[in-house]
Amino acid sequence: MLEAILTRRSVRNFARREVGGETVEELLKAAMSAPSAGNEQPWEFVVLRDRPTLDRIADVHAYGQMLRHCPVAILVCGDFNRQKYEGFWIQDCAAATENLLIAANALGLGAVWLGVYPIEERVTAIRGIVAAPEEIVPFSLVAVGHPVQAPPPAERFDRTRIHNDRW
Amino acid sequence: MLEAILTRRSVRNFARREVGGETVEELLKAAMSAPSAGNEQPWEFVVLRDRPTLDRIADVHAYGQMLRHCPVAILVCGDFNRQKYEGFWIQDCAAATENLLIAANALGLGAVWLGVYPIEERVTAIRGIVAAPEEIVPFSLVAVGHPVQAPPPAERFDRTRIHNDRW
Repeated sequence: MLEAILTRRSVRNFARREVGGETVEELLKAAMSAPSAGNEQPWEFVVLRDRPTLDRIADVHAYGQMLRHCPVAILVCGDFNRQKYEGFWIQDCAAATENLLIAANALGLGAVWLGVYPIEERVTAIRGIVAAPEEIVPFSLVAVGHPVQAPPPAERFDRTRIHNDRW
Repeated sequence: MLEAILTRRSVRNFARREVGGETVEELLKAAMSAPSAGNEQPWEFVVLRDRPTLDRIADVHAYGQMLRHCPVAILVCGDFNRQKYEGFWIQDCAAATENLLIAANALGLGAVWLGVYPIEERVTAIRGIVAAPEEIVPFSLVAVGHPVQAPPPAERFDRTRIHNDRW
């Protein structure tokens, strides 16, 4: 199981093959299993399959060109109305996004995390495209599909980042 | 593998049993496997085992009483000097923290995520305790140990949080 964490890479090239609704539901179950400050669960998810909608988002996201080709993308949003501890919704939504990515890898899918928040132009444009209300903040976008090829694991472990008891 | 995500719970009661250095290294490998904006990897980790240090942190963290009893805690810090995309270090460090929690569960350990940033008093106090420089931001604290009992999985899946293509 550690493997799904250690072998996760950003995947941006997807095969022409669908990702079924049950699979998406598994990904969302994983996302909603994330911890959150005071268990606030300040998240909402938009499952994006509509091609014109994905294309419009690609138009406003500099790094989002794979949205034109991925079978499905999941927009993770924060909900200000559910926030109990100020500012922690960002961490909560990031944990949910990370769960989604690991779950995708565990299921043999590929995925990539596209940053949305805190870049205001992206937030506003995407909120408009999905017609979300003002209190909803588009936070991250995860493009999902079957990888054309599995990239080799990255080796990011760096012992110099570890300190013991104090700096 | 999805199981380690779906069964993860916050664990605050730990058995009197050590967590070895190799296990901690596995947790940190998982943490450093997280994605980050522009692959900036803006994280540093302080492995806390020293009892007086853990007690001092418990003194300044309202929800940190388990630090007095856990065998080890890992302080995840952000490094402003490594930041490429402004503001994204928070999401990067949250993803690393979430990886750490899932890895702990996968290894049969229990863990709990204690929020530090953006609560300024906690950030400043903990930075002082571990003697970290100004550009280092204590972000989260993960207490780790062997669970006294494994809590049942939470059922957080909520279909009302899912939207299709638009709100």
